[in-house]
Amino acid sequence: MSAPARAKNSTATKRRILEAATREFSAYGLAGGRVDRIAEAANSNKAMIYRYFGSKDRLFDAVFDAVVVSTVDAVPFMVGDLPGYASALFEQHRHTPDILRIATWDRLERDSAGHRLPTVVAATEAKVASIRAAQGAGTVTSLYSPDAVLRIVLALSQPPLSGLGDEQGGEHIADAVGAALGI
Amino acid sequence: MSAPARAKNSTATKRRILEAATREFSAYGLAGGRVDRIAEAANSNKAMIYRYFGSKDRLFDAVFDAVVVSTVDAVPFMVGDLPGYASALFEQHRHTPDILRIATWDRLERDSAGHRLPTVVAATEAKVASIRAAQGAGTVTSLYSPDAVLRIVLALSQPPLSGLGDEQGGEHIADAVGAALGI
Repeated sequence: MSAPARAKNSTATKRRILEAATREFSAYGLAGGRVDRIAEAANSNKAMIYRYFGSKDRLFDAVFDAVVVSTVDAVPFMVGDLPGYASALFEQHRHTPDILRIATWDRLERDSAGHRLPTVVAATEAKVASIRAAQGAGTVTSLYSPDAVLRIVLALSQPPLSGLGDEQGGEHIADAVGAALGI
Repeated sequence: MSAPARAKNSTATKRRILEAATREFSAYGLAGGRVDRIAEAANSNKAMIYRYFGSKDRLFDAVFDAVVVSTVDAVPFMVGDLPGYASALFEQHRHTPDILRIATWDRLERDSAGHRLPTVVAATEAKVASIRAAQGAGTVTSLYSPDAVLRIVLALSQPPLSGLGDEQGGEHIADAVGAALGI
């Protein structure tokens, strides 16, 4: 195989592993996820996974990183339309539950260790900075701290917790965000 | 041991098992929680746990049931003061994170199976019925369905998701709920 062909092959293998790992970790979390199942689903093997990603923990990091990047790409943060952003994020979570599941596993399984991915921190800091600037310009309410504004928007864009019936509609989300932020 | 002494002893043992199981499941979830660790922490044994609770799944049910009941007791639902209720619930979650962690494990590990505890369903239905009645009486906004009102209140009373910095203050919660519901 030529060098370019090998590189192309390696990229395709890594992508297959990441896709399989996303499904596995979404379903079972970090502790419950099994590298051998990921290897089988990706038509690869454990040695290859460890060579590319280092460890199960680092593979989980790579998955989390990838879902954060793809969510930011799919649902760009719109400080000028926070109700619309919350609605779009809710729809994204409804259609692609993996993202929120993986973020939730991460919170349950790793937050106590103070583990924070640079991508996640950077994505949050960019949103907070953008809210702070909009508050300075007077286009977003200054009733709450920038961090609290973001928490309100994100909280209202999550699917409901267990036990809240089967109604999954998000029709109220934009209105609730608008009302909460006086928009 | 007399019959009353045996009953008292059995109640104390069950309570110790439940307390140990709450800590274990809060930390590791249902799949990751280990009955032998629970037995050791409760100064009991696995045979006793299975005799009292039937299975690891049923023990998780008993734990979830107990935390729902204790949360409802500690933070009674106040349809006449939803902002105050959201604030109180946030404080409860902050001081007793086990409750939300166990509810979150349940959602991640079991919801896809459609599993719902009667206690959880009943607690939710009681809140929704109370909101519906308050809407009928005109004391709660009818802009949203009763279910959506509850979702707004509960969403805003959750601690923030991963990556949202270290600020854990809930000062904005009552204001945000009040504004979202036009109170």
